[in-house]
Amino acid sequence: MSTPPPLAGGKNGPDALRPLLETALGALTEGAGTRGGPLPSGGPATVAIRVREAAGDLLPTHGTGAENALRTLVGAVAAGAADPADPLCAAHLHCPPLAIAAAADLAASALNPSMDSWDQAPAASALEALLTATLAAEVHGPGTGDALITTGGTESNQLALLLAREHAATRGHPLRLLTGANAHHSLRRAAWLLGLPEPVTVPAPAGVLDPAALDEALSELTELTELTELSGPSGPSERTGRAGRSGPAATVLVAATAGTTDAGLIDPLTDIADLCAIHGARLHVDAAYGAGLLFSDTHRPKLHGLERADSVALDLHKLGWQPAAAGILTVRDPADTRALDHRADYLNADDDTEAGLPDLLGRSLRTTRRPDALKIAVTLKALGRTGLGALVDQVCDRARELADLVAAHPRFDLYDKPAISTVLFRPTDADDEYIAHVRRTLLDNGTAVLGRAQLDGRRWLKATLLNPHIRTEHLTALLTLVEGTSHR
Amino acid sequence: MSTPPPLAGGKNGPDALRPLLETALGALTEGAGTRGGPLPSGGPATVAIRVREAAGDLLPTHGTGAENALRTLVGAVAAGAADPADPLCAAHLHCPPLAIAAAADLAASALNPSMDSWDQAPAASALEALLTATLAAEVHGPGTGDALITTGGTESNQLALLLAREHAATRGHPLRLLTGANAHHSLRRAAWLLGLPEPVTVPAPAGVLDPAALDEALSELTELTELTELSGPSGPSERTGRAGRSGPAATVLVAATAGTTDAGLIDPLTDIADLCAIHGARLHVDAAYGAGLLFSDTHRPKLHGLERADSVALDLHKLGWQPAAAGILTVRDPADTRALDHRADYLNADDDTEAGLPDLLGRSLRTTRRPDALKIAVTLKALGRTGLGALVDQVCDRARELADLVAAHPRFDLYDKPAISTVLFRPTDADDEYIAHVRRTLLDNGTAVLGRAQLDGRRWLKATLLNPHIRTEHLTALLTLVEGTSHR
Repeated sequence: MSTPPPLAGGKNGPDALRPLLETALGALTEGAGTRGGPLPSGGPATVAIRVREAAGDLLPTHGTGAENALRTLVGAVAAGAADPADPLCAAHLHCPPLAIAAAADLAASALNPSMDSWDQAPAASALEALLTATLAAEVHGPGTGDALITTGGTESNQLALLLAREHAATRGHPLRLLTGANAHHSLRRAAWLLGLPEPVTVPAPAGVLDPAALDEALSELTELTELTELSGPSGPSERTGRAGRSGPAATVLVAATAGTTDAGLIDPLTDIADLCAIHGARLHVDAAYGAGLLFSDTHRPKLHGLERADSVALDLHKLGWQPAAAGILTVRDPADTRALDHRADYLNADDDTEAGLPDLLGRSLRTTRRPDALKIAVTLKALGRTGLGALVDQVCDRARELADLVAAHPRFDLYDKPAISTVLFRPTDADDEYIAHVRRTLLDNGTAVLGRAQLDGRRWLKATLLNPHIRTEHLTALLTLVEGTSHR
Repeated sequence: MSTPPPLAGGKNGPDALRPLLETALGALTEGAGTRGGPLPSGGPATVAIRVREAAGDLLPTHGTGAENALRTLVGAVAAGAADPADPLCAAHLHCPPLAIAAAADLAASALNPSMDSWDQAPAASALEALLTATLAAEVHGPGTGDALITTGGTESNQLALLLAREHAATRGHPLRLLTGANAHHSLRRAAWLLGLPEPVTVPAPAGVLDPAALDEALSELTELTELTELSGPSGPSERTGRAGRSGPAATVLVAATAGTTDAGLIDPLTDIADLCAIHGARLHVDAAYGAGLLFSDTHRPKLHGLERADSVALDLHKLGWQPAAAGILTVRDPADTRALDHRADYLNADDDTEAGLPDLLGRSLRTTRRPDALKIAVTLKALGRTGLGALVDQVCDRARELADLVAAHPRFDLYDKPAISTVLFRPTDADDEYIAHVRRTLLDNGTAVLGRAQLDGRRWLKATLLNPHIRTEHLTALLTLVEGTSHR
């Protein structure tokens, strides 16, 4: 055959990559120029047609060559992106990655270490071990805990449930999940995935878990658990074998939230941790959004109590400015991860492990696994705690500023002062339907990407500010756009 | 605050990325030079010390700056890599990525589309839809099926089980998994994850599923399923309500393999599909490795019958030369994916979906999701079927050549001619323990990365050839290294 196309790795990889990267960068520049705003105009059907025309046949008999394929497809994706680096793209927990993180991630792609065995990732696995220790200590305290790398909060929540399920199983108990109505949808989905019973949901009318309601639910659930465990037909009257209040409740996992998706609110962590201790429940905190506050001296106190959780989800592709994925699950007790212990002779044979080859298969539910640790480690080391904290402070300050602008505006209502960097607002007197329409109009026009949230019995427009380059003029521009769209 | 560090996206992203990418490429070159071979010498403890020294404090108070962090950490990971681009790194299904795929992946990192909602990925989601249709057609035939992007074969297998579990649940049946002993470990792990009963394992002494043994197991399982379903105490005698042979067996999922991890063997797909049809069982084929043969006119016939599977796992980070992750699960019946339907008001509110915003949440169990479709699409379009097929032919030819060299060698035994690109061999008269020692010695010396497999009651050295740049001289060098190490 003719010479195969060049590889990304090895000694010759960098020289092969250089011109291709230049083509990709050119296509990114051109695409951003074509787009001209935070997202393409015209809506889904128009964008789909443009992409289809650019893509043509994705598996032609004869290829179009590297240069053409890169320019065409990267260009089309860039021209049709909702780019979080644009200050008016502020709907979701969808951060603009730092250039340094993207550059480090290229090295991960080029070397392609796979984290499921040492002989596919000697140094990358050693770096991951250092990073997970650093992040576990950041959450649970120096020298405490362990952490696993995940694809994001959804997988972290799923893993937290799985570890709790197995923890309960060692005691012969089934697991029951208890969350607030404000919790992320992935928790309920994880319970379904894992074959667990329907979770118990505690109402959260104010957007956060109410300790009194949680206490009541935990008491009820403890009682229910006890009833379920009694096999005799007479039920409650036989509750003499009760082994103290904390016994049966060990089958309950409470999932609290630090940084709700809708409003960025933080559940009262200390109160919840106290209640879990009283009822003998495990505590998981979904801090996918909020955990980034740990880097800021100013905002870190808002997470007081987080360190007491049995497990914590944090996403550095939110307040951490990483390209997806950069998910982490920390656990306070490193022994909890043993539930993932798993053997496959070709990856971690007993005699290899005894001979000193690290056993990595139990570090994830995935087998082949991209080294997301590299970009995270490079970013943390480059910026340091001070640098990351400054970015956190910056987006929180801008959110506070946007809230002030909204509050002072005669034609807008503000939901509340932001707890992190999410601002909910709505045009005064608009109905829910019209608010959804405003959002979709902005999307169709390609002028702004705003989110939506249902809270307080009403629908709100949602601005999630994650871009540290946002300035006051962008905030006013955003409000002007919404105002312009909401005049009928 | 001072100006925040530059972002990867937006109009200024490319200019910010350029010097950082140059630093990363420099560190990759330097690291490869330091390493000098397929992996670092010294073994795990030595590598860990080197990485720890290079990394220092990963979260210092004040950052070391982008330049320093990139050079230090990328350099350390490169110097300590097991680089699949090196022809003597040939242990696992761990491919060397093509430069074009890595370059396209950079654009994914820079733009950071998230595939869970249209307003985070307008064009990227449209491109993904084109790609999944293309890949589904490639497996199941023109215009047939659907496909989901996954993190790899492990997640694909897990999803296949989940879809089958939900399919069975709609009929009120529990699901039972039936695999060969040659199946990938992730299938058993997925059953555990999903709360399914222990899978039934059919012995596979020859390395592939034996149709006769499968037929027997399916018949037994059908009978067992029926027994379980009868609630009366008299059991088998009450089997009058039997609704035809295909009824109860619908709760069984057979998972076959096209390209076993140990030996690259392909189960007899047509026979297995016939048996599944007879017994009314669903069929999943784990073709994570083997599906790449579809691109080759020469090797495609080996996969005859694959198109009849209900679901198929394929990994383009194996025979597809993508950086991880590039996993796919295809389904023959697009309706099967409905099991993943899921609602979250902020991502796919009913009124948004009705207004034409594509509902993407049901395309994955993840929420935030990296656009792995981009690098795959760019590679397929750049190389075309002919280009990819040539790469497949190339690695299969080299495997055949290595097998011939082994067979002709007086001091080596060959397991068998390769079915794909995996060659199992062992020094004549070496015992199992010594074979593991040879492998670890090569790893410690940093001279070659070979795998191991247990087959035929014996341990073998495993060479998985995925590098299309491998030449005859590398194959002889590999054998010389093993021979040198195995002389005591």
